[in-house]
Amino acid sequence: MKKADIGMIGLAVMGQSLVLNMESKGFTVACYDLNPEQSVKGFVEGRGAGKNLIGAYSLEEFVQSLEKPRRVMMMIRAGKPVDDYIEKLIPLLEEGDIIIDGGNSHFPDTMRRTAYVESKGLLYIGSGVSGGEEGALKGPSMMPGGSPAAWPHVKPIFQSICAKVENGDACCDWVGENGAGHFVKMVHNGIEYGDMQLICEAYQLMRDGLGMSNEEMHEVFAEWNKGELDSYLIEITRDILAYKDEKGEYTVDKILDTAGQKGTGKWTAISALDEGVPLTLIGEAVFARCLSAMKNERVTASAVFPKTVPAFEGDKAEFIEAVRKALYASKIISYAQGYTLMRTAAKTYNWNLNYGGIALMWRGGCIIRSVFLGKIKEAYDKNPELENLLLDDYFGQAIKELVPAWREVVAYAVKAGIPMPAFSSALSYFDGYTSAKLPANLLQAQRDYFGAHTYERIDCPRGEFFHTDWTGHGGGTSASSYNV
Amino acid sequence: MKKADIGMIGLAVMGQSLVLNMESKGFTVACYDLNPEQSVKGFVEGRGAGKNLIGAYSLEEFVQSLEKPRRVMMMIRAGKPVDDYIEKLIPLLEEGDIIIDGGNSHFPDTMRRTAYVESKGLLYIGSGVSGGEEGALKGPSMMPGGSPAAWPHVKPIFQSICAKVENGDACCDWVGENGAGHFVKMVHNGIEYGDMQLICEAYQLMRDGLGMSNEEMHEVFAEWNKGELDSYLIEITRDILAYKDEKGEYTVDKILDTAGQKGTGKWTAISALDEGVPLTLIGEAVFARCLSAMKNERVTASAVFPKTVPAFEGDKAEFIEAVRKALYASKIISYAQGYTLMRTAAKTYNWNLNYGGIALMWRGGCIIRSVFLGKIKEAYDKNPELENLLLDDYFGQAIKELVPAWREVVAYAVKAGIPMPAFSSALSYFDGYTSAKLPANLLQAQRDYFGAHTYERIDCPRGEFFHTDWTGHGGGTSASSYNV
Repeated sequence: MKKADIGMIGLAVMGQSLVLNMESKGFTVACYDLNPEQSVKGFVEGRGAGKNLIGAYSLEEFVQSLEKPRRVMMMIRAGKPVDDYIEKLIPLLEEGDIIIDGGNSHFPDTMRRTAYVESKGLLYIGSGVSGGEEGALKGPSMMPGGSPAAWPHVKPIFQSICAKVENGDACCDWVGENGAGHFVKMVHNGIEYGDMQLICEAYQLMRDGLGMSNEEMHEVFAEWNKGELDSYLIEITRDILAYKDEKGEYTVDKILDTAGQKGTGKWTAISALDEGVPLTLIGEAVFARCLSAMKNERVTASAVFPKTVPAFEGDKAEFIEAVRKALYASKIISYAQGYTLMRTAAKTYNWNLNYGGIALMWRGGCIIRSVFLGKIKEAYDKNPELENLLLDDYFGQAIKELVPAWREVVAYAVKAGIPMPAFSSALSYFDGYTSAKLPANLLQAQRDYFGAHTYERIDCPRGEFFHTDWTGHGGGTSASSYNV
Repeated sequence: MKKADIGMIGLAVMGQSLVLNMESKGFTVACYDLNPEQSVKGFVEGRGAGKNLIGAYSLEEFVQSLEKPRRVMMMIRAGKPVDDYIEKLIPLLEEGDIIIDGGNSHFPDTMRRTAYVESKGLLYIGSGVSGGEEGALKGPSMMPGGSPAAWPHVKPIFQSICAKVENGDACCDWVGENGAGHFVKMVHNGIEYGDMQLICEAYQLMRDGLGMSNEEMHEVFAEWNKGELDSYLIEITRDILAYKDEKGEYTVDKILDTAGQKGTGKWTAISALDEGVPLTLIGEAVFARCLSAMKNERVTASAVFPKTVPAFEGDKAEFIEAVRKALYASKIISYAQGYTLMRTAAKTYNWNLNYGGIALMWRGGCIIRSVFLGKIKEAYDKNPELENLLLDDYFGQAIKELVPAWREVVAYAVKAGIPMPAFSSALSYFDGYTSAKLPANLLQAQRDYFGAHTYERIDCPRGEFFHTDWTGHGGGTSASSYNV
């Protein structure tokens, strides 16, 4: 009997979809899950019937059914289950065999697991997989990292099942060592939080500011999807706004405004705090979900602080175009911040990231896929060491043209009482990033005043630190144990 | 020979100051540090000469010099040194003896250490101490938590050395079990980050927007310090702005605008992300420090995106008053967010926090001390279960009066290109918090569309979840392994 090219542990929706995708590309896939009598049998005799699949009813049988070097992929819940399977697999595998985690693992776990699995003579890959069920089936975006020696053995499979862009380029390439793939996937998800929040703010401006109907907003998003904002999330927003239930009522109006989260946006914000990178837009997007979840308190507060948004005066069509520009400008900021986080983390973790390659991986298959990412790829292809997306000619020029409308929209929202956490934090970042001089000189003076933290001077080289005896009676104070 | 009431390990500035403070209140203090021949001798024969101090030249001698139950306080660098001393002390101490960590330890460490030390039959206290060198000497704010049984033995000392408010109330009281004291100290430091950023934004508006001189701004802060903003940080800002060096030049203008940080603001933001609490202002304050540190990039970007702040037109005095109101309103938001974080964490960690008591502890001695905190104490004394500071009558009324000026200032900054990350994120939070309906219904629709995450409905009870087959071909998709 022919052995399998790859094995899949975990036959929930994503696992099944990837298996069927692999099989459709000519690979034989071994399948295993808990309760195999039910899960494995149900799949290979059901949805997978008649296909080149090998159902395995024990982990031993599963491993033995694989071609060497064995490629064992797990699509299971992140966390302890991954460690448990690694422990179970190690005694069954042989030197050079490869364990692949395709779930949403936190990158420090993948760093730890890569080292551990390698210490046992095996190879490890942690791969981000984005695109949901449909993406997994038809072509997801894939972001693999881990043991470099594993990649040649996995590349033919991953690059054949992943999404492709128009010219046929694969939305999957080697990201880097140990946790790099899962790190990049985490940033992807953070950016997704940002993109969704930006669309929500544009929607709220039109809904609450301009008093537009779902049908009108549907048409606006349909129009936006033809231009610079052309993307999966704009496209589904267009469709969502037009969607009516069997009673002919708009479903979007029936949905409670309390957003959930599953933690990857939070991880991205925490990583930015750890790296000291101002990732303000994604931070605000995560906090906006938290605030939305405080529904009862918001209802109480809305009665204590009643407000009516003033009727919009001015040219509606012009304002809608200004909103589009504000969204586009804010989106550029969000990606600029996300890329800065990746550049900084790459230094911290010694990853050699290919930023244009990452844009290409995100260009198709995943939730944030967009025409925009093609432009980011071009920017990094032109200059792989680009310090900040804003310093690229194309995006720099774009932002310059967008700024007046962006300011107008944020100022309108500020006056109308419509919350714009992401639009306005993006603008603050832009204004701060383009300021040669910020007010932090005062802040350093304060820290030196109360904690003797010392400061650098504009008229002395960096790295020379000074302390002022501000009160005249401080003397040789030092902040050795007082930290702020 | 009389035994010591308490022992101090760590004779850097903060440790020395606390020892002298304790001694001045009638306590005999044993002193120990590394290199005792130098550090201990230097202190007891120098700054501590002629005082009731016992210099110890070994840890054994130090422990034997203490009255039982022994009270051993450490003022040493947070992290491994604390664990190391705990290990060294355990075999030397007896049941009921107390180890106190007065450094800036991260609260999860204090939780772990409390359980560990208690498992050895000893008691543990982790206490926030704020006020810098001068506070430590004359009366710091102290926030002790840990083993409740330890508190009666430590209370007389702590409450005698700590800061007092006008009526004599001590700025120190029991916070709660295990890590509660260090948690509250962490939030204190986060709020301090926020307060400092708010002052910087007011300063920048006056400096860059109104083109005011240091002398003029000095007078403004002097004036502000007489009213609702009366606080230590406004006071030192007043003094910093007037401070001239020996050449007669303003020192504040010579300081490089790159702010440092030592991590406690970051910890606060991470804790808020972990708890799902929108702590946007402190988050932006931390990120503003990160952005300030990107000095070279900012200088580059300022050349690519040149800007001139338009000359201010309007009544300058009126605008300065509006800036004061914007600062005050934003400060209320920051404390409202910080208190929400404490309330939420208290549920997570089973702490029974006294919110009025915390305001009192911060009312004097520490860096954020202010008249304002007296009002917060009143609010929580009136209603210990207050859900949000904005729902208190006093602060609710205050915010209502401040809102128009606040909007005016933020809108001005948005148009002038002056970054106001904290002022504007606070306003977005206010506008979001007081919105019964946010746009998160669209966000939930998106999540349900691409990931089958399900949603709740406005016309059905909470806890019932629905899924829509948006595309008409999704079917029974489930998001079991695809997390966003």
